[in-house]
Amino acid sequence: MLEQIDLTKKMSKKEFKARMEQLEPELSRLQRTCREQKLPVIIVFEGFGAAGKGYQIGKLIHALDPRGFTVYSVGSETKEERMHPFLWRFWTKTPARGHIAIFDRSWYRKVLIDRFEKVTPDPGLSEAYKQINTFERQLTDDNTVIIKLFLCIDKKEQKKRFDKLLSSKSSAWRVSHGDLKRNEKFDEYKNMNDQMLEHTDTDYAPWTLIESMDREYATIKIYTAVISAIRRALAGHSETMPSAKTTQNRQTVSFQDNILRTSSLKKADLSLDISRDEYRKKLEHLQKKIAALHGEYYRRRIPVVIGFEGWDAGGKGGAIKRLTEKMDPRGYQVFPTASPNDIEKVHHYLWRFWEHLPKDGHIAIFDRTWYGRVMVERIEGFCTTAEWQRAYQEINDMEHQLYQHGALVLKFWMQIDKEEQERRFRERMDNPDKQWKITDEDWRNREKWDEYEKAVDEMLVRTSTTYAPWIIVEGNSKYYARIKVLQTVADAMENHLKKK
Amino acid sequence: MLEQIDLTKKMSKKEFKARMEQLEPELSRLQRTCREQKLPVIIVFEGFGAAGKGYQIGKLIHALDPRGFTVYSVGSETKEERMHPFLWRFWTKTPARGHIAIFDRSWYRKVLIDRFEKVTPDPGLSEAYKQINTFERQLTDDNTVIIKLFLCIDKKEQKKRFDKLLSSKSSAWRVSHGDLKRNEKFDEYKNMNDQMLEHTDTDYAPWTLIESMDREYATIKIYTAVISAIRRALAGHSETMPSAKTTQNRQTVSFQDNILRTSSLKKADLSLDISRDEYRKKLEHLQKKIAALHGEYYRRRIPVVIGFEGWDAGGKGGAIKRLTEKMDPRGYQVFPTASPNDIEKVHHYLWRFWEHLPKDGHIAIFDRTWYGRVMVERIEGFCTTAEWQRAYQEINDMEHQLYQHGALVLKFWMQIDKEEQERRFRERMDNPDKQWKITDEDWRNREKWDEYEKAVDEMLVRTSTTYAPWIIVEGNSKYYARIKVLQTVADAMENHLKKK
Repeated sequence: MLEQIDLTKKMSKKEFKARMEQLEPELSRLQRTCREQKLPVIIVFEGFGAAGKGYQIGKLIHALDPRGFTVYSVGSETKEERMHPFLWRFWTKTPARGHIAIFDRSWYRKVLIDRFEKVTPDPGLSEAYKQINTFERQLTDDNTVIIKLFLCIDKKEQKKRFDKLLSSKSSAWRVSHGDLKRNEKFDEYKNMNDQMLEHTDTDYAPWTLIESMDREYATIKIYTAVISAIRRALAGHSETMPSAKTTQNRQTVSFQDNILRTSSLKKADLSLDISRDEYRKKLEHLQKKIAALHGEYYRRRIPVVIGFEGWDAGGKGGAIKRLTEKMDPRGYQVFPTASPNDIEKVHHYLWRFWEHLPKDGHIAIFDRTWYGRVMVERIEGFCTTAEWQRAYQEINDMEHQLYQHGALVLKFWMQIDKEEQERRFRERMDNPDKQWKITDEDWRNREKWDEYEKAVDEMLVRTSTTYAPWIIVEGNSKYYARIKVLQTVADAMENHLKKK
Repeated sequence: MLEQIDLTKKMSKKEFKARMEQLEPELSRLQRTCREQKLPVIIVFEGFGAAGKGYQIGKLIHALDPRGFTVYSVGSETKEERMHPFLWRFWTKTPARGHIAIFDRSWYRKVLIDRFEKVTPDPGLSEAYKQINTFERQLTDDNTVIIKLFLCIDKKEQKKRFDKLLSSKSSAWRVSHGDLKRNEKFDEYKNMNDQMLEHTDTDYAPWTLIESMDREYATIKIYTAVISAIRRALAGHSETMPSAKTTQNRQTVSFQDNILRTSSLKKADLSLDISRDEYRKKLEHLQKKIAALHGEYYRRRIPVVIGFEGWDAGGKGGAIKRLTEKMDPRGYQVFPTASPNDIEKVHHYLWRFWEHLPKDGHIAIFDRTWYGRVMVERIEGFCTTAEWQRAYQEINDMEHQLYQHGALVLKFWMQIDKEEQERRFRERMDNPDKQWKITDEDWRNREKWDEYEKAVDEMLVRTSTTYAPWIIVEGNSKYYARIKVLQTVADAMENHLKKK
């Protein structure tokens, strides 16, 4: 999940102030409603050292009635705690109905710091993830709302903050030896965090990533996440909610807000381009390289799954054509994904993709994929909210099974901007050979650009995993885009081979 | 789960015939309704070799329209299948909506025969369980009904059946070398099956154990399990069901039926007794032994959790008194479990038990336990059906966490018959010193004896695990019962120590 995060997010003091004027009273109101409705709430703060957990907890409780919440700061296990099952100290701290428990670090310590310090041995990891998920599921099944916030900063920023803290006697104690070690080995520790997020981002207790380079931005995002989650839970919890008042406010506190999105999609530099000459040269080189790798994959019986998604006219077809041009046709297959046919419709939505998974040594390329569930099906209402929310995990599970089986799994998002799309649509309409490629539906989808952007953002964050990453392809230049796709495939095939 | 099964169950041909006359047309009707309602159904047959899977599938499909079902016989993976993720061959066989897929052996092969044959390495087991549960959850989330039947016979019966098959050329091929090896190492293989059942008995896809020593009995139980599951699913699936016709038939096909229960509770030999002299001698010996073991447990910091459940006046208090009499009071604690108080009521039902879990080296004895959820709360409607159905897994998860932490976990069911209970109730009423022990509620509970018996039966089967077994204590004789409890505790403490 962390690969897709855009850490450049900022917010001006003025906007911050204006938003907080809405958010604080809203959260206060919601706390009162939670108490009336007897809804228990758990808020978990996790994230990198010096990302501002303490500061943000201070900001959050500012809006809360102190009689209704408790903050727990979670350190190493005490001697007493070690003499119990690991979740004992958290079970005993679960909030009463109507109360809020805020955790500054939590049970995730077990699979993060304690893993890094080798207190938790690697063979115990999968059991720990299982116990954590079971814990959260049992509580949410019992109507507890669990809101999990992960505060992110980058290595450089962390170092800067540590240095600042260390420079003064009054704050130096806040930086531990462990903190510095985790900064030194930032990438290793980040990878542990990424694995943790992958194992525990569930439909019943999802993570929200909080970009925390800028304090004000982070505060707003935290408030928004907490408010949305509680509101959703109250709506499900009781018919009496939401009141007219909170509905009015919906506009201000919603992830509809462009600025509160998480992925780096918006940051894609669509001006990237290469010359025709460079394109030709690289294309030939990469096609040969991939063909050679393909042979090696066949020989060693390693399957490959490559998915293509992107805006209509984003260049999926062109990229797939170049990718496969020099491949041995007996070793790969391209599956275009249209609306499900009658047989597919009476099966699970993943069934038709399972049918087409490649056998060992083969490459399966999907032109549009199972991600339709969380894009078109979500937006057009072809499935219920519960269904598409559940789908992130279902899809991750499927891709993880492929990975476990030995497969290389890659997913490309072909990104273009709205203007470029219009240009391409018009070009298609004007060209008799390409008219078949453009339908009324394409124009209709285009009208829902914003809705799609929101869905894509969530999809990229929730399903970009260490074992099956998303690659955003800057697609305004077809040359650039195709080379990026081929280069990525070649590199990934090479790296995957080395790990074998 | 297998420890609690009563394999002596039989059914006369006459009763069999009478029941089948109801069950067959009922199943036919339900198949048609499934088709109308587009409900997909998966029926899994697993169990010991020669338990009669093939025969029973034949019996079951007798009632079904052949256009609406498919039977899959699952052998070793083919070369093609091995070149895909393990669940691929099952995903591609999931039934279309309205159809029934019947599996003669299934994905469980991976954690049973393939484990026994060491095709599945032990480190891969927990991943396999996870994938299986994910698979079943994804399908049931999508409204597929999954009915899992586990056919049981004992070692001797299996040998007899193999010998019979081997004695004739026309059937000898049905017994493989692997079958014979699994018979030889029956207990080892049974233990693998038990672990599988523990890992995969979920609220969304529960197992039904089928006692298969007697064919007729097994057929009736299979029909009943399939009919009940489909009916439950249809009731949830659509408002139009169940029709008046099926409601009429409810009486005949329900697990209310005493004979269709699974546990060996009914078989408990309540005539077991010992003399006063023997009691005294053994009591003293065992109390000393337990006190010594207690010291060793304290020294080695091993926690113990002992739960007592049973009929009112079943002898819990007396047994606990004898168990603890010689123990060092600083090292154990008895927790009587009454109705939850106000603070307990506003927490998860397991919270108050987590609070009281013993620390390492201590013994916690619970007089009534968390099993109230699936007994009194179930019967009195203090929780919803979904809640108590989910509770089996929640409870198993909690006990497994204790076990993983190193604890010894034991659960005693104090069994007496209805007459003995009445005798004890009257004795209590007549004795001024004991009158406080008997309340109107006890008499009211007594009226629900049959309902409790059904709930206890399901509880014993679903929550007797290899890591936290139930022990049924034949309790009509208090002397016998107390000695059995102490003997069991002493033996278990000794064995658990050896495994450390």
